[in-house]
Amino acid sequence: MNPIQYMFRVRWGETDAAGIVYYPNFYKWMDEASHHFFHEIGYSFAQLFSEEKVGMPLLEATCKFSSPLMYEDEVCVRSSIISLKDKVFTIEHEFCRADVVVANGWETRAWAHFFNGKPKAVSIPGEIRQALVNQQKRNENNREKV
Amino acid sequence: MNPIQYMFRVRWGETDAAGIVYYPNFYKWMDEASHHFFHEIGYSFAQLFSEEKVGMPLLEATCKFSSPLMYEDEVCVRSSIISLKDKVFTIEHEFCRADVVVANGWETRAWAHFFNGKPKAVSIPGEIRQALVNQQKRNENNREKV
Amino acid sequence: MNPIQYMFRVRWGETDAAGIVYYPNFYKWMDEASHHFFHEIGYSFAQLFSEEKVGMPLLEATCKFSSPLMYEDEVCVRSSIISLKDKVFTIEHEFCRADVVVANGWETRAWAHFFNGKPKAVSIPGEIRQALVNQQKRNENNREKV
Amino acid sequence: MNPIQYMFRVRWGETDAAGIVYYPNFYKWMDEASHHFFHEIGYSFAQLFSEEKVGMPLLEATCKFSSPLMYEDEVCVRSSIISLKDKVFTIEHEFCRADVVVANGWETRAWAHFFNGKPKAVSIPGEIRQALVNQQKRNENNREKV
Repeated sequence: MNPIQYMFRVRWGETDAAGIVYYPNFYKWMDEASHHFFHEIGYSFAQLFSEEKVGMPLLEATCKFSSPLMYEDEVCVRSSIISLKDKVFTIEHEFCRADVVVANGWETRAWAHFFNGKPKAVSIPGEIRQALVNQQKRNENNREKV
Repeated sequence: MNPIQYMFRVRWGETDAAGIVYYPNFYKWMDEASHHFFHEIGYSFAQLFSEEKVGMPLLEATCKFSSPLMYEDEVCVRSSIISLKDKVFTIEHEFCRADVVVANGWETRAWAHFFNGKPKAVSIPGEIRQALVNQQKRNENNREKV
Repeated sequence: MNPIQYMFRVRWGETDAAGIVYYPNFYKWMDEASHHFFHEIGYSFAQLFSEEKVGMPLLEATCKFSSPLMYEDEVCVRSSIISLKDKVFTIEHEFCRADVVVANGWETRAWAHFFNGKPKAVSIPGEIRQALVNQQKRNENNREKV
Repeated sequence: MNPIQYMFRVRWGETDAAGIVYYPNFYKWMDEASHHFFHEIGYSFAQLFSEEKVGMPLLEATCKFSSPLMYEDEVCVRSSIISLKDKVFTIEHEFCRADVVVANGWETRAWAHFFNGKPKAVSIPGEIRQALVNQQKRNENNREKV
């Protein structure tokens, strides 16, 4: 289970009049894949936000598109941490349809407390940092074997 | 009226449970601002697509976020062409709230024909290229005056 | 200015692969028209929610569709209160394109306080009730003249 | 497997600043549940639309809301045909969270051909009518047993 994978099928409402996926949906899927990533390594955004007022607002997000997606396409997003700083991390998302990469994206997010509704970047807690490092290591070991 | 401006007010459904704008909406707004840009220089996406099967699919889109947007914020997006090649162009979008830049984005798009539903890049027609060049010039003249 | 009107142009991302508007957008537009309605009679949802933790969650929403909308269609939504009870009101939305009605919708909403994140219906405050009644009267006077 | 069930978990982007689901998403989920329904009885919207230019545009859609949904709630939508006419059918959707009904919706849809981009209602083909009748019967048998 390495890197972490998020699967979905393109829904009707995600297409546009040109018959292909309306591009902002790729960023929605990156957001969903990031939430799924934290869920898989043991952390729930829902719990972090409701109990600790912690969120991960975006500093930057990029996506490169190689091939359009169509309605009912089965898609797999492979997510992995590629940079981990004190308050900021970057997560990469590779979109595949039947083993062909159709898009590549990156999200740079801050670890932030929401006090009075405004996000303020804080250090990533040691426990979460360790979970992210462990995931990176599993990922690298996995690549070396391949 | 230079660069071309697209104005909107943040809608309720564009926020998330953290009380700020859900970030994929910035890409939706960039798409809307690009459509508005072509409309303002005299070209309708609706007409181009229905009559000539021409669209402008994305090759890449990036956005950098400086400050979160909230419900009912008044936003102005200033759009300008920053790169113009044979089949591809890049349009920059600067998001401002009350004269403070809150985000900067770039979309790189291909000029494409949709035959059998699949986009295929073609040369940007001379007439449209000229309209884009004219818009760039007006933009530069405007900057020199400032 | 009676009934209150909310204008918009159908955006590219609101269409689907059949080339017409993806139907859930009509409910998004009803929500936007309701927010606009309160704004026009002097009340800001943003202020009500941030200062008083008051919202207007839905009890029921219906829409009947007569004719599909296409990309770039200019649409006018005419909104009016058709039922006003102690804690609950119903607002009607008539969608027109060039004076032809293309859809009719109704939203029944509760006036609610959000304590601990959960909405609880409360009586509509007297001042707001009066503003709604006044709007209804202006609407009826207007109809009689026609 | 009766009635047909569509499962999902509420995503972050589906909430609004009040911390609950933004209501138009229920109609998006009804649309997804209807597509899933046809998929489960052996018909793919993607294939019907691309090969036969057949779609199922909405005539009317209603939803009644009993309890708000929150981020990460696990939801099950139970869908069943409750009316079947020559060109028109109504599909009911019951939304449950942990066996508690949180919303009930109905979509009335026409069977339609999209010629020149405009939908035109036609008779529901015999084969599909039969599949819908069979599904209704399985549903009723199932209820009698309970």
